[in-house]
Amino acid sequence: MDAIALVPIEGLRSVQPGDDLAMLIAAALLERGPLPAAGDVLVVCQKVISKAEGRMCRLSEVEPSALARDYAERHDKDARVVELVLREAQRIVRMDRGLLIVETGPGWVCANAGVDESNSAGEGWAVMLPRDADESAARIRAGLQQATGVDLAVVVTDTFGRAWREGLTEVCIGASGLEPLLDLRGSRDLNGRELHHTVVAVADELAAAAGLLMEKAAGIPAVLVRGYRYRPSAGGAKALVRNPQDDLFR
Amino acid sequence: MDAIALVPIEGLRSVQPGDDLAMLIAAALLERGPLPAAGDVLVVCQKVISKAEGRMCRLSEVEPSALARDYAERHDKDARVVELVLREAQRIVRMDRGLLIVETGPGWVCANAGVDESNSAGEGWAVMLPRDADESAARIRAGLQQATGVDLAVVVTDTFGRAWREGLTEVCIGASGLEPLLDLRGSRDLNGRELHHTVVAVADELAAAAGLLMEKAAGIPAVLVRGYRYRPSAGGAKALVRNPQDDLFR
Repeated sequence: MDAIALVPIEGLRSVQPGDDLAMLIAAALLERGPLPAAGDVLVVCQKVISKAEGRMCRLSEVEPSALARDYAERHDKDARVVELVLREAQRIVRMDRGLLIVETGPGWVCANAGVDESNSAGEGWAVMLPRDADESAARIRAGLQQATGVDLAVVVTDTFGRAWREGLTEVCIGASGLEPLLDLRGSRDLNGRELHHTVVAVADELAAAAGLLMEKAAGIPAVLVRGYRYRPSAGGAKALVRNPQDDLFR
Repeated sequence: MDAIALVPIEGLRSVQPGDDLAMLIAAALLERGPLPAAGDVLVVCQKVISKAEGRMCRLSEVEPSALARDYAERHDKDARVVELVLREAQRIVRMDRGLLIVETGPGWVCANAGVDESNSAGEGWAVMLPRDADESAARIRAGLQQATGVDLAVVVTDTFGRAWREGLTEVCIGASGLEPLLDLRGSRDLNGRELHHTVVAVADELAAAAGLLMEKAAGIPAVLVRGYRYRPSAGGAKALVRNPQDDLFR
């Protein structure tokens, strides 16, 4: 089995609303390397995508609801940020002990609906998740193919917390060109025993791997993964959302 | 920022109870490469550690309790495996719809307490998690240092499911030599804004990255991660266990 390389994409300038992110990434790759090759996976953090797509909000323009004001006061939060979280949420999973765990439009369960003030457009701004990160991934993939001639798979990530475990990890919230789940059910282990339950969330493993290079202050919003043999697919990341009926923790 | 390489460790023979796993891994590294270097992280899957430590059980020797028999019958499971799971569990988190999500001795929340029949000693055997994977990691690290002269950090992994998301990922259940959590609280983002919540579970990201090379049928039980600048630490992986009082999903 071959080694896998995780290569940080450096030299990307600060992203502004309306920027063509695929062009910026292609330019960085063509200028500083590595030159993209077929089979590479481009992992991009959500923050630069949201900025390019204009998914930002000036907090001074947000009018908090009574619920947001009350919750913010009790838990020492910014009521305008709470209001944004409630607007982005499709369903509240937990609203307890100052934590607001919600389900977003596409079905992701995460804290604060992914609304984040860090690495935003500056003080007083918040960034929301892309409306549909699968579409973002598909757009970036098409743009990269046009600019470089290479069909890369694209994974869009955000930094989520988890149940039961401390700390955040980078997970996949959008994908294009690869199968996010590797279904090994029916295949056999080293003893020839059939596997009954093994479906691996490879898109989340790719996201986490890239996360090792995406520290918040490092300014690395994208990573090229070389050497991982993914399965091509037309589907997106929503296959990673567990059906609420099958979820014991929703 | 430098690239990170994930290198599969190949040529490891089938592991038996009593084997010195550190010696086997050191021999594979010295014979087939890559030669270990300071700063490398060795990621090892739990299965080979459990086998070397004799954490296996012949199912024919397990006498199921009434609870295990009843549950197994209702959900079409092997009562002896259910019995093993109940014995390994410290607390049942969910026992619903044929899923048995439990808390293990060290506090990991996972399905079936990590008891697994795949890649075991053969048909009719199950493998349990190491009793204390931090101790396993420390032993392997000491053995590798003795055999190679290099102080590698060691991460022990298992394949866990998650709440809310489909698919399994490799996570860290044991560590030695590195800080499993990277606490960025108090540091600043690219805009100079202070980060208030960002603690990254880097040991889980290392585990997931290695998981890309650890497919069940590939026979790759260990991966060398080169180029990730971890923070040295004497602590273990238990810092990744969320305190039950702080957990909204326990």
